[in-house]
Amino acid sequence: MMTTSARGHCSKDQKVAIGVDVGGTKILVGYVTEDGHVMESRQYSMDRTSQLSALHSIDEAIDHFLQLFGGGPNAEGIGIGLVGHIDPEAGVWKHAINIPIHEPVHLAEKMGERYGLPVTLDNDVRCATRAELLYGAGQEFKHFIYLNLGTGISMGIVSDGRLVRGAANYAGELGHMSVNTMGPRCSCGRVGCMETIASGGGMIHRAIDLLSSYPQSTLNQYTSHLQTDRIFIEALQGDILATRIRNEALEALQISLTNVVNLLNPEVIIVGGGVSRDKTIVEDLEAYLRKTALPAAANALVRVEQSNLDVGRVGLLGAATLVWGGGLNGTYR
Amino acid sequence: MMTTSARGHCSKDQKVAIGVDVGGTKILVGYVTEDGHVMESRQYSMDRTSQLSALHSIDEAIDHFLQLFGGGPNAEGIGIGLVGHIDPEAGVWKHAINIPIHEPVHLAEKMGERYGLPVTLDNDVRCATRAELLYGAGQEFKHFIYLNLGTGISMGIVSDGRLVRGAANYAGELGHMSVNTMGPRCSCGRVGCMETIASGGGMIHRAIDLLSSYPQSTLNQYTSHLQTDRIFIEALQGDILATRIRNEALEALQISLTNVVNLLNPEVIIVGGGVSRDKTIVEDLEAYLRKTALPAAANALVRVEQSNLDVGRVGLLGAATLVWGGGLNGTYR
Repeated sequence: MMTTSARGHCSKDQKVAIGVDVGGTKILVGYVTEDGHVMESRQYSMDRTSQLSALHSIDEAIDHFLQLFGGGPNAEGIGIGLVGHIDPEAGVWKHAINIPIHEPVHLAEKMGERYGLPVTLDNDVRCATRAELLYGAGQEFKHFIYLNLGTGISMGIVSDGRLVRGAANYAGELGHMSVNTMGPRCSCGRVGCMETIASGGGMIHRAIDLLSSYPQSTLNQYTSHLQTDRIFIEALQGDILATRIRNEALEALQISLTNVVNLLNPEVIIVGGGVSRDKTIVEDLEAYLRKTALPAAANALVRVEQSNLDVGRVGLLGAATLVWGGGLNGTYR
Repeated sequence: MMTTSARGHCSKDQKVAIGVDVGGTKILVGYVTEDGHVMESRQYSMDRTSQLSALHSIDEAIDHFLQLFGGGPNAEGIGIGLVGHIDPEAGVWKHAINIPIHEPVHLAEKMGERYGLPVTLDNDVRCATRAELLYGAGQEFKHFIYLNLGTGISMGIVSDGRLVRGAANYAGELGHMSVNTMGPRCSCGRVGCMETIASGGGMIHRAIDLLSSYPQSTLNQYTSHLQTDRIFIEALQGDILATRIRNEALEALQISLTNVVNLLNPEVIIVGGGVSRDKTIVEDLEAYLRKTALPAAANALVRVEQSNLDVGRVGLLGAATLVWGGGLNGTYR
């Protein structure tokens, strides 16, 4: 049993939380102040060979962080953001695919006993949305969408300053919005899902599938280590396959986000995640939505923008906010 | 100036409101008790020749109702449900198409002066969703969708017992979710919108468009007065055109509602509006969603069902609820 205490001494009056951002390949642990400042953080690797190894990686990461900084600030609790399906009220990590969580884990209780602090869990995109609510778009807007364009696609929905979680904390699966009855088959069983066309993973998969039809494409050089950044760069250079992949991704984003704007009438769409680094995608999307959404919804849409928060730390920030008041719906302020 | 007073004498302790449900062809006015009982109601016709004639129709309907029943219960206020785009906080009817409202109308203020009572406005589908929240599905569930299948298609979204209104009270435009990049052109400018395929108006329009290609279809008898009920009856009898129209409508509903379940993770979908009277549509939809939505979302979906509320009075009931406490978000109980 690990006995390292998370309770150190706080030099200031600021409340401090320990945030833990658990991703498919890495774990980020940090001290975060209530006003959103990351005091210390360290990155650890995730061994996702099995459910057991993944849980062990999380323990080890927090243990090591506390050995380094445990004499530091007096943390009020631990907030953990995780991929997959989370029940925040029960503190249970129910299921994940990227990390092989096949049996529900009572992680909040286990971690609470291990570190002697209150522990709260939530989904990683929900955490990023909480970070936007407290430190980003939410300071200005009460109705917004946080669109995560990464390996997968999902979104956080904020209505009247509150998170829309759904019945099982599972709302926001935009990646599985079907927009094309003739589109590619998705792993979920449907056809034409956003994720197969517009996610980082989907774009890479489609490019590799299509390489043999485009022998002239410069993408042929990158087969085994193709990244979306590369697809965007080659599209700008005029490569036909890269242009096709980028344009199809943009078209799927255009259709699905118009659907979202007509359905949810947000003031702002904040784009985060790795793929959002291509600013032209964000600009093209805004121009399209202004033209294509229903007039009352388009008029109410103030802007579409890249997140102002550090893409590498937004999950950590959001996880830390789970510790503070305001409840799980994010009605913190 | 009309001087009929709405203040009469109340024979019981029950709170009473005047509900007004303003549709494209008729206006329903009634006394509704706080527990959802319609004490008296009368239906009036709507003259939608112009904005002025439409507003005059509403005045005349309420005037006549109060002349008949003004000596009755002591109403606390008037709640008005209207088609189109409403700003409930400002009390403004901003825009409508079915009824030609081209200039914003400060209807709450005008009506308040006319009748000496507080007046609150909202959109008709939002009103029906409030009725479900207080007297229907909301008694059992905190996360639900009210799906209105009528001449058009739209929905009300309830998250954690609260209405999701969007930035301009315009959330819920499911009719303009595009689900087919090869679909028919919609009046909104996009292709493949739900409304062109699955709404009552869309189905009739498509049937009439396709009649010349189906000279054997029994629908040829009904050209000028075709109703969706007739399309469903003839589909059951095996008519090929009617079957095609019904199946395409069902497919569009299946795709779009799977998108909605994946996006919003509701416990229940309540189906209201004229087209919902075809119970097989509701049953087919539930079976499809169970099979096709993402597992966590499908598991959380308890059921899809026809509304238990009287389809002819749900708008009136919901309009009356605007009068009582709990605010516009429907957090009444």
